[in-house]
Amino acid sequence: MLTPAHLIQLKRDGEELSPEQLLQFIQGVSNGQVADYQATAFLMAVYFQGMSLSETVALTDAMLASGERYDLSAVPGTKVDKHSTGGVGDKVSLILAPLAAACGLKVPMMSGRGLGHSGGTLDKLESITGFDVHLPRDRFEQVLREVGCAMIGQSKSMVPADKKLYALRDVTGTVECIPLIVASILSKKLAEGTNALVLDVKVGSGAFMKSREQARKLARTLVQVSKKMGLPARAILTDMNQPLGYAVGNAIEVLESIEILRGDKAESDRCSSDLKELTIQLCAHMLDLGGVVKNVPEGRKLAHARLQDGSAWEVFQKLVRAQGGAMEQILEPERKLPQTSSAVIWKAPKRGYLVKMDTEVMGRILVELGGGRKKASDSVDPRVGLIFHKKLGSRVASGEPMVTVNVPEKRGNGPDLELLERQFQEAIEVSSTRKPVPKLIFEVLS
Amino acid sequence: MLTPAHLIQLKRDGEELSPEQLLQFIQGVSNGQVADYQATAFLMAVYFQGMSLSETVALTDAMLASGERYDLSAVPGTKVDKHSTGGVGDKVSLILAPLAAACGLKVPMMSGRGLGHSGGTLDKLESITGFDVHLPRDRFEQVLREVGCAMIGQSKSMVPADKKLYALRDVTGTVECIPLIVASILSKKLAEGTNALVLDVKVGSGAFMKSREQARKLARTLVQVSKKMGLPARAILTDMNQPLGYAVGNAIEVLESIEILRGDKAESDRCSSDLKELTIQLCAHMLDLGGVVKNVPEGRKLAHARLQDGSAWEVFQKLVRAQGGAMEQILEPERKLPQTSSAVIWKAPKRGYLVKMDTEVMGRILVELGGGRKKASDSVDPRVGLIFHKKLGSRVASGEPMVTVNVPEKRGNGPDLELLERQFQEAIEVSSTRKPVPKLIFEVLS
Repeated sequence: MLTPAHLIQLKRDGEELSPEQLLQFIQGVSNGQVADYQATAFLMAVYFQGMSLSETVALTDAMLASGERYDLSAVPGTKVDKHSTGGVGDKVSLILAPLAAACGLKVPMMSGRGLGHSGGTLDKLESITGFDVHLPRDRFEQVLREVGCAMIGQSKSMVPADKKLYALRDVTGTVECIPLIVASILSKKLAEGTNALVLDVKVGSGAFMKSREQARKLARTLVQVSKKMGLPARAILTDMNQPLGYAVGNAIEVLESIEILRGDKAESDRCSSDLKELTIQLCAHMLDLGGVVKNVPEGRKLAHARLQDGSAWEVFQKLVRAQGGAMEQILEPERKLPQTSSAVIWKAPKRGYLVKMDTEVMGRILVELGGGRKKASDSVDPRVGLIFHKKLGSRVASGEPMVTVNVPEKRGNGPDLELLERQFQEAIEVSSTRKPVPKLIFEVLS
Repeated sequence: MLTPAHLIQLKRDGEELSPEQLLQFIQGVSNGQVADYQATAFLMAVYFQGMSLSETVALTDAMLASGERYDLSAVPGTKVDKHSTGGVGDKVSLILAPLAAACGLKVPMMSGRGLGHSGGTLDKLESITGFDVHLPRDRFEQVLREVGCAMIGQSKSMVPADKKLYALRDVTGTVECIPLIVASILSKKLAEGTNALVLDVKVGSGAFMKSREQARKLARTLVQVSKKMGLPARAILTDMNQPLGYAVGNAIEVLESIEILRGDKAESDRCSSDLKELTIQLCAHMLDLGGVVKNVPEGRKLAHARLQDGSAWEVFQKLVRAQGGAMEQILEPERKLPQTSSAVIWKAPKRGYLVKMDTEVMGRILVELGGGRKKASDSVDPRVGLIFHKKLGSRVASGEPMVTVNVPEKRGNGPDLELLERQFQEAIEVSSTRKPVPKLIFEVLS
């Protein structure tokens, strides 16, 4: 058996590690035989040398083996989950889980928290007072069985190796590395016990993958590894060059989700159409992958119908009730969800078309407002957020409101709103000539 | 000020770090603000991305600034030291320090211990009972002043950042990296207070640099960085495709050194001629660099003379006395230096010429015998060792003794001598056709 130092050297020199060697390394990370300072040197070597497909499969398997794995076979129905690689304003899960359940799937959704510019489903759900994202295993199964979906955080006993490695990657510049991303995502999805998986791989200025080429590589690897691990999967490459929908912020994203679930035809509808379209498309793929429909177009039809007839909205209400959330907040979200008492408005600098947006900056502005996290131990303020009045391609008049910013109450060292507005203005481009708007969904890999 | 994680990312992405950033990072390593797991990720990023000359200078400077720096200006004379990048059977320092002192230089030599296949001067000196390599600063200065040379280990207060980083590099596959090697060597040499430095950069099967190209690059960087740091330096590229001299092992290397210092014309002389030649050549460069002579040929003449007339041998005796070593051991080394009571002989497998030797294997065999270290905390047995009867290019008869191996007393789990002999036989090549012997000294860089 090689020493950890020797395994690091092999990877450093571009050798392919065997499944046994990767298992040994990951077990060592879990039990302390591989020191943290060896784990990070290894991760950096992987960053530079990459991993073959079979190494990535073996790494995923080794990480999965580091903890508990749920078996949901006692819950009747096909379990299909969706995972997004993360973006700004991405509240799809809140609508999609109840919608797919309303269409006949079981959705055992385990999500994460926001970190950096990227939001997290758990934070959004916790804007609803009392909503419990830490259900024990038996209760998780019960909600899944009775409601059709359950939305929780990952159990502590699942994939402990990923928890350790992710914390190390976060502070050592080794986050942006496809085999490590793939093993981290898939080991957790395999542990939660889903039967199939739809992956929403985001591309653009607000995504971790800024280029299509990188995103496509990630998507392809995710699908290939997932299949090798016995988990049918499909990846959809979707645009993240602007926030999804109009809301960026925890409570207001819940509000926007409810508007779609209720079928509101509000003024804001125009700005939510991408969110609705993406949700239906992802649902169609989940239904197709889960065998509920014969093809994706049929899936779209079914998803449309279940959104229209209010059954998805009903499932959402059941879900919130089952997980302990305050019902009055979701029945009267405009009045009862947490909100700030003051707001500022950022306006268009000139007349023209909104042609570009550095969406990561929008996520970072939310963090500065207190609505996201710089480090995992930070707490979030559910009330703050940004309401976008314009989407890419919109015509704007000079001085027209672009964004309403729900700001925290003024305190000694609150955010510097002038600085944030400057950052916002620098992150957008208004042009006198129209430019093509990126397609919302531009590739499906299966 | 950037976070450690951000600095790692910059290096990972191939950016050039500023002197301030490198100072911040090294200070962080020393004071704990940079975690060990961040330091190793950084080191691996440097392994892949390298460092520019000015980064390497700044890294050396930052490491030097992490600890105490000796000022030897109160000791009259020009201080010139020699550093070797390490090899097998390299006992040059034991002869060279007294020889250069006998020629008029002051030699403030701080050395290291053996690790892996490579031997260390301190271990060799400690074969002499009582020899104290841990002199306090004032005593070090006194010995240097009175004897002309002093040979000690690095003080604990010197370059603590290097101690920490070296220990981490050793277990994370980041030893073989030129900017890290250069900063490690030069920060220590700058801290010891020498005025000039001759570098013996080893190349070949027993060296860390196996190729001339790599060794040349290391040598060039060492000289360039050294000069930028205000330390005149010269590098000599020398052969390490076979052990230097005939002895590999701590006490017998002291014996071989004494034979040369005494000017013995023993049977073994033939096998020591490379050792003697290299010592004289290095001494000539030290004398030239230190301004004692006008050029290298004059330096050679002077070194020859001082070896011949016994003055180097006298300085060695003074040195041993000054540092507390047992005089009877060096006056009667054949009888009184530590030695084993048993030996085995490994013979030539066939008739021919000895044309090749994997010299690293020879170093590793010494480690297996107990004469070297696998890890820094191991202790060494000074008595064991290998006595080589043949050098590259020698004609051998089938069954003729190649090596005498001084082996430890048989114990329960002593070394497997049959296995070691097999390793030896696999590491040498005896051929019916002669091949050119590598030149001992093949390049000087200044």
